[in-house]
Amino acid sequence: MKHPAPPFEYSIGIDVGGTTTKIGLVDREGHLLDRLSMDSQATPDARQYSAKLAELVQTMIRTHAAEGKIQGIGIGAPGVDERAEVMAAANMPFSEPVPLAKWIEDATSLPSRLIKDSSAAIIGERAFGGAKGMDHFVLLTLGTGLGSALMIHGKVIGGANGLASEYGHSPAVPDGRQCNCGKKGCLETYVSATGLKRTVFELLATMKTESPLRDADFHHLDARMIFDAAESQDPVALEAFRYTGVILGRAIAGLIVLLDPQAVFLAGGLIHAGPRLFDPVKESIETHLLPMFQGSCPVLPSQLGADDTGILGAAAILWDDPKS
Amino acid sequence: MKHPAPPFEYSIGIDVGGTTTKIGLVDREGHLLDRLSMDSQATPDARQYSAKLAELVQTMIRTHAAEGKIQGIGIGAPGVDERAEVMAAANMPFSEPVPLAKWIEDATSLPSRLIKDSSAAIIGERAFGGAKGMDHFVLLTLGTGLGSALMIHGKVIGGANGLASEYGHSPAVPDGRQCNCGKKGCLETYVSATGLKRTVFELLATMKTESPLRDADFHHLDARMIFDAAESQDPVALEAFRYTGVILGRAIAGLIVLLDPQAVFLAGGLIHAGPRLFDPVKESIETHLLPMFQGSCPVLPSQLGADDTGILGAAAILWDDPKS
Repeated sequence: MKHPAPPFEYSIGIDVGGTTTKIGLVDREGHLLDRLSMDSQATPDARQYSAKLAELVQTMIRTHAAEGKIQGIGIGAPGVDERAEVMAAANMPFSEPVPLAKWIEDATSLPSRLIKDSSAAIIGERAFGGAKGMDHFVLLTLGTGLGSALMIHGKVIGGANGLASEYGHSPAVPDGRQCNCGKKGCLETYVSATGLKRTVFELLATMKTESPLRDADFHHLDARMIFDAAESQDPVALEAFRYTGVILGRAIAGLIVLLDPQAVFLAGGLIHAGPRLFDPVKESIETHLLPMFQGSCPVLPSQLGADDTGILGAAAILWDDPKS
Repeated sequence: MKHPAPPFEYSIGIDVGGTTTKIGLVDREGHLLDRLSMDSQATPDARQYSAKLAELVQTMIRTHAAEGKIQGIGIGAPGVDERAEVMAAANMPFSEPVPLAKWIEDATSLPSRLIKDSSAAIIGERAFGGAKGMDHFVLLTLGTGLGSALMIHGKVIGGANGLASEYGHSPAVPDGRQCNCGKKGCLETYVSATGLKRTVFELLATMKTESPLRDADFHHLDARMIFDAAESQDPVALEAFRYTGVILGRAIAGLIVLLDPQAVFLAGGLIHAGPRLFDPVKESIETHLLPMFQGSCPVLPSQLGADDTGILGAAAILWDDPKS
């Protein structure tokens, strides 16, 4: 933070996503008092995007008469280079790296910080979620892709080059599915909303059972339809969740033997599947985990709620600063 | 260390192995000035074992007229519970956990510390080896099994329960080879001297080519024979090293995307295979690694020499204390 200050009542969290950018007013207990959002793809002009974002922030502050009560603005975004403090995500429409915190700070005169969305999420989980008091845990976010973050000895692990925690691209299946990254078998090609859909298509080919999922083409099938099918006991959907859990459990077993964390938290839309996902995950961990670790590390759903994790985490970085 | 003291000229490193316990006199530059060894399995009486060990230490000190010049005694051993400061390795003949540092300290009046052999190895690599000045690296030791150690932010990662760095038991091959630990497909069932031998047996079954390795039964085949066969261009031995390298490279790619280390060091007997192992490792990393990490993390042989790593590392813990 550039302007150290005593703790104020509120902070602003900004969650930059490929589709939507969300802005929230958050108090020190992690209550989300208000939220606004805007289209992330509306303009390829980063200056315009930033100006619009600053405007929404100002609106929010005015609405709540929160002038002078704001600790600062935390921004979590994909593709952040935390050293250069710029955002350069492939799924954003901007052609150049964007120094978003600097621009927002200039526009609002509030201290602003830009960090990776995954770092924001893990800081938020510790500040406001299920990891309160933990210094040593892992957060995996199962969204369109698979995000990951590590906290070790109370610090978010950034790595030697600021690139750490890309566990979604750890090789999970030898010679497996093609990944966006150009490699094969990456964990996120199985364990993510997209991975779940790919698994359904594999199962529609290998299984013969009738399924409502046979009515959707690849482009139209989405996680919501698979959730609904599972809800009505569709064997294909149920098997897809089970298979996802098996692969995820195996990957978590690998994390546990390496890092011996206090807990692994799962976040993101897929965790709404509840026991349909968590049960096979736990079973697979038991199948693959070195016996001396059995029972050492619970796998828990994030306590921040799938939708607001990003905002809360971004807001938390102004108060809780375990960045290394 | 229990007795803080100014840096002395020498320290004693003790490397407890399942077969042999080695003792070395080491100077601050990491020169091994003398070494003695004893049979680790000679007695199931831990008190007797410890007394004999203390005796050898005393002998070594007297021989070098090093009285008053010893910083302390570092002991690296398998199966150490660093919190309780006891050794309880399955492959040692003692039935109870052994507080070896305390006993050696009582017998020699020199400050003594007991840590995991893998922790000693990584501390040694930083103190005296190829990782000088590095705060963020990984060490994998390819011996009978696969040892691992992580240093992050300048600290050896112990984990929430002191169990971290058992990467040898990360699931490497779905439903793969049976492991001593009771699970299947653990990395060390492929990447270790034992794993190499198992690979040779698999290849003797799948390949039809003649090979000197067909003359050895399972109990008699050892890594040395496989090294010799590779030396004379035996296709089975060459393929065994290649396959080992592929599995290891994939596992290292998983470490790199997770931790973004400055380097990965390989130690242990298998690294004598040189390019026969390192080349396929590097190729496999390239095949499996997220492109943005390409070239970010060299894979290097330990600079401590396969035989003395344990002694040097144990000696180093008296001077260099990055334990968490």
